[in-house]
Amino acid sequence: VNCCIVCSRGWSVIGDNYNPCCSLPCMNSGVCVLVDQNYECDCTATGHYGKNCETGNKLFRPSRNSLHHLMTHYAWVWKIVNSISWLQKKIMRTVLNVRTKFVQEPSPYVGMSEYPTWNNYINKSVYARSLPPIPRHCPTPMGIKVLPDIEVLSKLIFQRNNFEPCPMRTNVFFAFFAQHFTHQFFKTDPKKGIPFQWGDHSVDLSHIYGDTLAREHSLRMHIDGKMKYSTQNGEMFPPLTSEANVTMSGERLMKGRKFAIGHPGFAAIPTFFVISTLWLREHNRVCDIMKELHSDWDDERIFQTARLILTGETLKIIVEDYVQHVSGFHFQLKYEPEVLHGSDFSYHNQIHSEFQLLYHWHTLLPDFLKLGDSIYTLKELLFNVEPVVNAGMETVLKQLSEQFAGKVVGGRNQGPELIAVAELSIKQARELRMYPFNKYRERFGLKPYETFEELTGEQKLASVLRDLYHDIDALEMYVGFFVEHRRYRQVLGETILEIGAPFSLKGVFGNPIGSPAWWKPSTFGGEVGFNIIKTTNLKKFVCRNVKGCPDISFKVPENVKYKSVE
Amino acid sequence: VNCCIVCSRGWSVIGDNYNPCCSLPCMNSGVCVLVDQNYECDCTATGHYGKNCETGNKLFRPSRNSLHHLMTHYAWVWKIVNSISWLQKKIMRTVLNVRTKFVQEPSPYVGMSEYPTWNNYINKSVYARSLPPIPRHCPTPMGIKVLPDIEVLSKLIFQRNNFEPCPMRTNVFFAFFAQHFTHQFFKTDPKKGIPFQWGDHSVDLSHIYGDTLAREHSLRMHIDGKMKYSTQNGEMFPPLTSEANVTMSGERLMKGRKFAIGHPGFAAIPTFFVISTLWLREHNRVCDIMKELHSDWDDERIFQTARLILTGETLKIIVEDYVQHVSGFHFQLKYEPEVLHGSDFSYHNQIHSEFQLLYHWHTLLPDFLKLGDSIYTLKELLFNVEPVVNAGMETVLKQLSEQFAGKVVGGRNQGPELIAVAELSIKQARELRMYPFNKYRERFGLKPYETFEELTGEQKLASVLRDLYHDIDALEMYVGFFVEHRRYRQVLGETILEIGAPFSLKGVFGNPIGSPAWWKPSTFGGEVGFNIIKTTNLKKFVCRNVKGCPDISFKVPENVKYKSVE
Repeated sequence: VNCCIVCSRGWSVIGDNYNPCCSLPCMNSGVCVLVDQNYECDCTATGHYGKNCETGNKLFRPSRNSLHHLMTHYAWVWKIVNSISWLQKKIMRTVLNVRTKFVQEPSPYVGMSEYPTWNNYINKSVYARSLPPIPRHCPTPMGIKVLPDIEVLSKLIFQRNNFEPCPMRTNVFFAFFAQHFTHQFFKTDPKKGIPFQWGDHSVDLSHIYGDTLAREHSLRMHIDGKMKYSTQNGEMFPPLTSEANVTMSGERLMKGRKFAIGHPGFAAIPTFFVISTLWLREHNRVCDIMKELHSDWDDERIFQTARLILTGETLKIIVEDYVQHVSGFHFQLKYEPEVLHGSDFSYHNQIHSEFQLLYHWHTLLPDFLKLGDSIYTLKELLFNVEPVVNAGMETVLKQLSEQFAGKVVGGRNQGPELIAVAELSIKQARELRMYPFNKYRERFGLKPYETFEELTGEQKLASVLRDLYHDIDALEMYVGFFVEHRRYRQVLGETILEIGAPFSLKGVFGNPIGSPAWWKPSTFGGEVGFNIIKTTNLKKFVCRNVKGCPDISFKVPENVKYKSVE
Repeated sequence: VNCCIVCSRGWSVIGDNYNPCCSLPCMNSGVCVLVDQNYECDCTATGHYGKNCETGNKLFRPSRNSLHHLMTHYAWVWKIVNSISWLQKKIMRTVLNVRTKFVQEPSPYVGMSEYPTWNNYINKSVYARSLPPIPRHCPTPMGIKVLPDIEVLSKLIFQRNNFEPCPMRTNVFFAFFAQHFTHQFFKTDPKKGIPFQWGDHSVDLSHIYGDTLAREHSLRMHIDGKMKYSTQNGEMFPPLTSEANVTMSGERLMKGRKFAIGHPGFAAIPTFFVISTLWLREHNRVCDIMKELHSDWDDERIFQTARLILTGETLKIIVEDYVQHVSGFHFQLKYEPEVLHGSDFSYHNQIHSEFQLLYHWHTLLPDFLKLGDSIYTLKELLFNVEPVVNAGMETVLKQLSEQFAGKVVGGRNQGPELIAVAELSIKQARELRMYPFNKYRERFGLKPYETFEELTGEQKLASVLRDLYHDIDALEMYVGFFVEHRRYRQVLGETILEIGAPFSLKGVFGNPIGSPAWWKPSTFGGEVGFNIIKTTNLKKFVCRNVKGCPDISFKVPENVKYKSVE
């Protein structure tokens, strides 16, 4: 095999001594196998055939864009659809089926493993992945494509010059909620690094209750199912570390009060701390209700049942408030796991590297945050949650909900204190030897982009990208996610959404509490507990746990105009 | 609630101070919950309603017996059906769907947990269960039913007086194969006891390769993917413990050569040892084929791929030879996982306590075994595999295949050296607080028995049982399994089969290698490896690994008449 690689704007011939799988010849997710110095593509189950799995029915339904158009237009039609229960359920089931079929669970590929092994099935200590790594010992880390320098990319593509607010009016509270929610399952091992991770691949509320039984018990009161708490300025907050025998990350660096929370990193910044406080209050509130109902229940049963109720509430809010906001759909999404009952479904989940990478929405964060009467840089809030405690939850939540979050995609909106995260992520994605952006689009049923202009929807950034990558097929996945143009009525670009949604919905609807054997009143302490889940939403969740019942959503209220916080 | 319990042949009133759920009032697998001193039944998803979930469409398809009749008669019709590929597949898919829907995976109940908890979902250290335990603090361990003395049961119900051979001509080789296969996943924790277990809930071949990476590596040669072996009398056997750094159970007690095998208990008796030797040979044989095909593969990749091929071979032989024999069906069962593709399926498995208990087929074992020129009691073969090595595999396999195994069900066929196992099992089932036999029949869609005669199909044993239990609804599950009358053309009784089949098929078809992302040639080293799986069967498996190619099946050859070995 003779092949050319792009090299500093010219083409240079490389030898024929490399693994032919390095050029990623198999299309449509066919598996490349080396046989006698030559490659073969295993096209099984791709719906394609031919030497490179190139022939067959394209899975790229041209309908993908039409579907998006349909879901984000004709509001009056959707208003009717949403009100017809059986129709809404039918469409929801279809959405779930269409989305989750892109997730292969259990994945044959995990971590850096290049081929399926039994160990891949049982190894939970690494992220799974939906495409194998590019083979080792290729001419370049991207197979045969050459990649630009990370610092150059960072400066020209990621760095924020002027803060761009999210056109969908996403607020900072959403950013906080997103970070809190996702870090219960995005848990890259701090010592071993990516792809190693220490989570349980699921929405397990380990960030509230701790990842081990020992940590859980240190945080529990062992009275009526409740979690320990402390009272600060007359409000309920997590317990102080002096009151719960758990270690918190960066405890030495913390300014002011040191709080103890399920996830060891969640007392370090207000992002995690605010939402942790809300869930702590909700847990103890639910315990009171269960205690009232079941006078014969011991502490353990109240605790365990409250935990399952909170799991259900989390999933409900994630689907009906959070994903709804991200989708931009007029169609009303619902967490009603029963729509999947009657047919088989795998109530298991794996967190994929691709999901972890595409979820780096640090562009959401502005450079300054107003908490109480002061304005802080993000750096000033590191290891410092005092401003939250001092201002009080009601004030803070109102402020977070009224401040604009940044535009996620389109490039050049990563704040100065987070630019290092983008650089690290590109580096990690390269270490993971991820397939190029266009290959991932193909894997998830999207047509590969043909030009940089088609990708960015404009000229300027496209031209910079062309200078850096030369070839659209050489564009790396992580960069592609964040330079793509924003989709109509959506916070995100097409690729992040179309790859993220399958992982997200599989994670939510694959939670065991939604399975036929679990999803029934008795699992949640009877009809009362079941109804807590079924009737909750973001607004009520905040209202009932914060004095003054602030009216909170994931959007900046319509009467608030964007202005720079500086 | 006022209630009576059976007590030494009379009725005695017990107080009203007990948990009303103790009387197991909820029918059709409804969940009993205590609310304000009173019980409520959660009938969700049972297809029933009413205070006790008593009303609704009976799931007891009267067709269950008709289906059995159909599958075990009209051989000529089935001969045609079996030859029409699409029809065979369609029926196979139906069989799988009908069977596996009785398994709730992930089960809300594991170990001794009485209600669903998040920990139940993640706790792999205990067996799952398909019904919760009878509540604690009930008037009797069975709720409100009184149980007979175990020693009396053992003597009157289990003890073998005269060896009864299996009417289906099941041979001792089958018993060996069953024991070897099932002990890779029936692994009760020797220290903590039931319900604790140390397996991985799946057909993971840990009995060949070890349950830890360390053990696996101690048993591997690290050359061309192969496992260590030793040569004894010119034949390939497992390595000696002096050649592999692994501990084996009871090593101090072993007579003669001490062999090292994946499962630490598998060098202790010939049952495990014979079959372990076959699989070891097969692994190294497959490695040779892979090495030949893939000159660029390292030791690791050959090993891992051979392991997946052997997993496929195991599943194939289990479905097409083993389960086929047990089923007695004229319909030909096939391991073709693709029949489930296209719809969702959970490629995960949990080993249930009920499955573990019903699989105590120790009645299969005769009192004496002929190996080479000598006849041994089972006790003489404990920690003694020398007779196998000395007689040679060919001779031993022929002898095992020509000796009749015992009749499994119908009572009174547990040999003198295994009667203690029956006693222990009844004790364990009581410690697990298992629901009564009839409740389990209901759970698996079978009509509860109304009389002891209906259960045993005769008068004598029925009369003994009535004296012991008084009430058919008081009959405990473990005893029920083994006193039930044998089904026409089958090795087992209806209940063992109808409860066991769902667990068995879920375990086999829920193996990850059968999932759409895995079940393709490239997973198994290409078409050659894939075909090893697709074309294997018991006969070939034995033939190609044993000198002289003995012709082995799970039945005693037709020309061998039953005669006592004594």
